[in-house]
Amino acid sequence: MTSAGDKGSGLTYASAGVRLEEKDRFTDSLVSVMKRTHGPRVIPNPGGFAGLFRLDFNERLFKRNYKDPVLVACADGVGTKVKLARQMNRFDTIGIDLVAMNVNDMIVQGAEPLFFLDYIAVPRVESAVLGDIVKGIAEGCRQAGCALLGGETAEMPDVYAPGEFDLAGFAVGVVELKRATDTERVEKGDVLIGLESSGIHSNGYSLVRKVVESAGLDLDAVYDELRPRAIATKKRAGSAASRKKAGAVGKNGTKTRAAAPAPLTLGDVLLAPTRIYVNSITKLLREYRVKKVISGMAHLTGSGMAGNLERALHKKVDAVVRLDSWQPHPVFTFLQSHGNIPDDEMRRVFNMGIGYVLVVRPTFADSVVQKLRKLGEKVHVIGEVVKGKGVVREE
Amino acid sequence: MTSAGDKGSGLTYASAGVRLEEKDRFTDSLVSVMKRTHGPRVIPNPGGFAGLFRLDFNERLFKRNYKDPVLVACADGVGTKVKLARQMNRFDTIGIDLVAMNVNDMIVQGAEPLFFLDYIAVPRVESAVLGDIVKGIAEGCRQAGCALLGGETAEMPDVYAPGEFDLAGFAVGVVELKRATDTERVEKGDVLIGLESSGIHSNGYSLVRKVVESAGLDLDAVYDELRPRAIATKKRAGSAASRKKAGAVGKNGTKTRAAAPAPLTLGDVLLAPTRIYVNSITKLLREYRVKKVISGMAHLTGSGMAGNLERALHKKVDAVVRLDSWQPHPVFTFLQSHGNIPDDEMRRVFNMGIGYVLVVRPTFADSVVQKLRKLGEKVHVIGEVVKGKGVVREE
Repeated sequence: MTSAGDKGSGLTYASAGVRLEEKDRFTDSLVSVMKRTHGPRVIPNPGGFAGLFRLDFNERLFKRNYKDPVLVACADGVGTKVKLARQMNRFDTIGIDLVAMNVNDMIVQGAEPLFFLDYIAVPRVESAVLGDIVKGIAEGCRQAGCALLGGETAEMPDVYAPGEFDLAGFAVGVVELKRATDTERVEKGDVLIGLESSGIHSNGYSLVRKVVESAGLDLDAVYDELRPRAIATKKRAGSAASRKKAGAVGKNGTKTRAAAPAPLTLGDVLLAPTRIYVNSITKLLREYRVKKVISGMAHLTGSGMAGNLERALHKKVDAVVRLDSWQPHPVFTFLQSHGNIPDDEMRRVFNMGIGYVLVVRPTFADSVVQKLRKLGEKVHVIGEVVKGKGVVREE
Repeated sequence: MTSAGDKGSGLTYASAGVRLEEKDRFTDSLVSVMKRTHGPRVIPNPGGFAGLFRLDFNERLFKRNYKDPVLVACADGVGTKVKLARQMNRFDTIGIDLVAMNVNDMIVQGAEPLFFLDYIAVPRVESAVLGDIVKGIAEGCRQAGCALLGGETAEMPDVYAPGEFDLAGFAVGVVELKRATDTERVEKGDVLIGLESSGIHSNGYSLVRKVVESAGLDLDAVYDELRPRAIATKKRAGSAASRKKAGAVGKNGTKTRAAAPAPLTLGDVLLAPTRIYVNSITKLLREYRVKKVISGMAHLTGSGMAGNLERALHKKVDAVVRLDSWQPHPVFTFLQSHGNIPDDEMRRVFNMGIGYVLVVRPTFADSVVQKLRKLGEKVHVIGEVVKGKGVVREE
């Protein structure tokens, strides 16, 4: 290596916009947040190059050995919901969305989520923002019963404009081979059971933000049409200013949410985190371990009911979904009317209020509905399987 | 759902800049590329919500059952090397870097890579570019002997400026618990064996690009100082124009590389894909299955030799690295002189020509060196372990 003068005159990594120390400090601060998601199957590996997760315990106490374990893996992001989080300057729930998008896909295969890893890309490490994002991810992992095993934070000032960021996540789970879902199992007569979504979840935000912009909607306002059971109230005047102030306080570490539950603003409703169905679905599957009661499942994401439920079918059956069998979440009617969005476009882009669908043997349908309600889900029987050629018919 | 006029007047997802069909078409086109990386342990799951990978085969032919399997997982990106790929309009090797960054981390733990998933974020789906990226990822998986099990392509026109993109990857492997590396195993007297890098690998590109820019270097030029064995040649005049033309032809599907091997341009050298050490390391570990010959390993990334080799040590030993025991790859001396970068900054940011280090019992050092050379690695004995307090001393 040749000598190259003193530090003052030459180029350094810092002069290129990357601050290794800041990143290291942030990484260290994550350790305790991540540890709270670690069960006994995570092997401590401080400073290690990778996360270590024991698949099985040979010790009798923890024994849940698999005869023929199949690993199940997903990769997903949260799309432009990141933009909304930035607009609202609230970063503590977007991580829940990130976990949800991955683990809800995974349980469709009958798998139990084991662990999760994240990738966070930012133009510049802002510890408070990143800390909130990771807290959300850890909360999502807690809800999904999986370990936050590792992740990567990339500081890339030349790729991401100031204020922009992106998130990607990866989940790994396991399923016993003979219990993995199989589209061939779906039969004519099977009942479609829908679980309500918490709102928009994490798809369609480019369109959502377009509606907000083109209709001049105010993220900080409370709109009557968005109240689940509408009581007439006027649009809250001046709320934009008051929320912004609250946000600024929050950034400095104080809890921002008012003591009494404030009415939800449009921003609150749009940013509501994606519901994680892991607990309900894994418990349900465990209750029917011997009998094959669940023929198939679908997590409703980017291409709506038709595009996703179709993936649970084989070529000799159709799914008939009755659109009048549930009330869409008010946010969808709100967006549709303000954006003048065609019906079929709505159904193609959004979940319309149903986030997860189970295909169930008819004799067990009532029992499945009851069990899911006890597990805290809002459940609707939304249709049935008929002879066909592998498509979803929304009627 | 309320009716909302005809498609012409209302908002659609397409009007918000997202084209679901284009994305679907691209996803379909990936199937065959991915399948080429699938061994018998990947379970076909067309249209599935997640990738399925059998950990073990109970059939005798494929039996490699683990007694106490530990899953090993990594997440990583390639940093701003993506910017360089875009500048050079060449996207078929950056995927190799992505796989390399993850699997080289994983093998440090003694693990065998099983599968890989990618996340590609773009402002707009350009099938040719994305296809090249995924081909590179598949090639990386082939080199690493792992399956490309799935991935996500996110089209986010509001987050990524035209021309920008980002990549993240995620690898899962497995190691038998008692064969996982353990920093406690490192002993005074152990020998440090370094494997040469292929160049800059995937760290420090913010600084690399800063040097190129501030020193007015030409990515399309051939610089004598970059030739491994320098034969005096003049900087190729007019090479910029000729390369650009070749690139444009390539975009339309014809092979661009000249029939006779052209001298490497600065861009070629800077974009050279990260070396994947999986084949050499897994074969080496298999040869010493019973004896514990390898005390520890390190993959040299973001914080150079000191920052990474330190992670292989416990608190009672130091690693002494002799800086004169290998010749740095010419790209490092080139960048240092053109950017006037201090020595210690160079060593903190770059791998300086050694991409991977093994810590080996002294009696086996010669044999390990021989085996690694036979496996195609360029190998240097670069130092040894002494009593200390867990730090790396570069002398």
